[in-house]
Amino acid sequence: MLIGIIGGTGSQGLGIAKRLAIADFDVIVGSRKEEKAVRVVEEANSDISEYTSNKMVGKANEDAARDADLLILTVPLEAQIATLKTIKEFVKGKIILDATVPLETAIGGNVSNLLHVNPGSAAERTAKFLANEDVKVVSAFCNISNFHLANIPEPIDCDCLICGDDAESKEIASEIIEKIPDLRVVDIGKLEKAHLIESITPLLIGLNIKYKSHYGGFRLTGIDFE
Amino acid sequence: MLIGIIGGTGSQGLGIAKRLAIADFDVIVGSRKEEKAVRVVEEANSDISEYTSNKMVGKANEDAARDADLLILTVPLEAQIATLKTIKEFVKGKIILDATVPLETAIGGNVSNLLHVNPGSAAERTAKFLANEDVKVVSAFCNISNFHLANIPEPIDCDCLICGDDAESKEIASEIIEKIPDLRVVDIGKLEKAHLIESITPLLIGLNIKYKSHYGGFRLTGIDFE
Repeated sequence: MLIGIIGGTGSQGLGIAKRLAIADFDVIVGSRKEEKAVRVVEEANSDISEYTSNKMVGKANEDAARDADLLILTVPLEAQIATLKTIKEFVKGKIILDATVPLETAIGGNVSNLLHVNPGSAAERTAKFLANEDVKVVSAFCNISNFHLANIPEPIDCDCLICGDDAESKEIASEIIEKIPDLRVVDIGKLEKAHLIESITPLLIGLNIKYKSHYGGFRLTGIDFE
Repeated sequence: MLIGIIGGTGSQGLGIAKRLAIADFDVIVGSRKEEKAVRVVEEANSDISEYTSNKMVGKANEDAARDADLLILTVPLEAQIATLKTIKEFVKGKIILDATVPLETAIGGNVSNLLHVNPGSAAERTAKFLANEDVKVVSAFCNISNFHLANIPEPIDCDCLICGDDAESKEIASEIIEKIPDLRVVDIGKLEKAHLIESITPLLIGLNIKYKSHYGGFRLTGIDFE
């Protein structure tokens, strides 16, 4: 399974890339510019060298999208559609894990406020934009703080909510994500539920700011998910 | 501290009423019709008699609002404004804990879907409607399942998010709510954040349905709230 992180040189994408490389997946880190991807990955490989001999590869987003079997989109909302345009011709039939969250920062607002988008979630925007490409969009990673992802090798005391319309894609996503220590994946349903996942992110960011943390997350209680 | 539960004969209101009575608060259970309140409270007092000698009192909502020092509003969205109209003249200067959640059921939709309201949350609707009454609105109890509340004397393994514009009211609310075993109150900020609390409820209801539970809740992780 070759995983491509689209917009992977930001802190979220790079954190996911490192975690998955340590979990022994083959990972391509994509960036708008290949040279940036190569440069960032060289340092990132050095960062994780004490935990794995696995090496990530840096490429342009287009090449990452073409070469990888499964894509993870980790860009801010304002770059989401622009990025999808550049990779659209390479995504046919693939699974896309979308970590995009509609934060008000996209329009100069507050990082702890939600922006209402149309359709009702960032993940549905991806699905709509790629409607003719037979992609399977799964909302994922939206509620996991970048600081947790970067805090290698510490386990992550959080649940990772996912949703999507294709059951098999969600199973594949779960298997991948749960290779990251202590993350538990909870499937909340169809992609139309993505706004419920995305709206938790500004809550957690707001709590991090208010209570001077970087690691706000949550565990669901009272439900047996086995 | 005399607490009035407005719309208190439903399962949420009655669960809160019983929990607070057991915690030794004086509780009035309000209903549209006094006779219903009296009847329901008689049975409810019998239910909790093995845990407390404290007796709740049943009254019409108007009388509950007039007599109580602090009010808890536990009605469905479609009854929210209609109920506030009936008690408006009795709420001057009081704290109102609003447990209303904008579920799509208010317009014949799905209980696990959120309804977008104007202003952006049910709690802000209360604040707006009572803007001239000097009330202090605190969003509270939105994420605590009725089944947990009714499951006396079991502790409740959940965090109870609250928000509001008046700091002192939130402290009073916290002290009251945390008398219920294991509930931890987390203040997420101003009342404008209430939509972030309310949007978690349809997520939890959806998970309860999907995974055949009644007790879905959550605990925040990674933040030291002390």
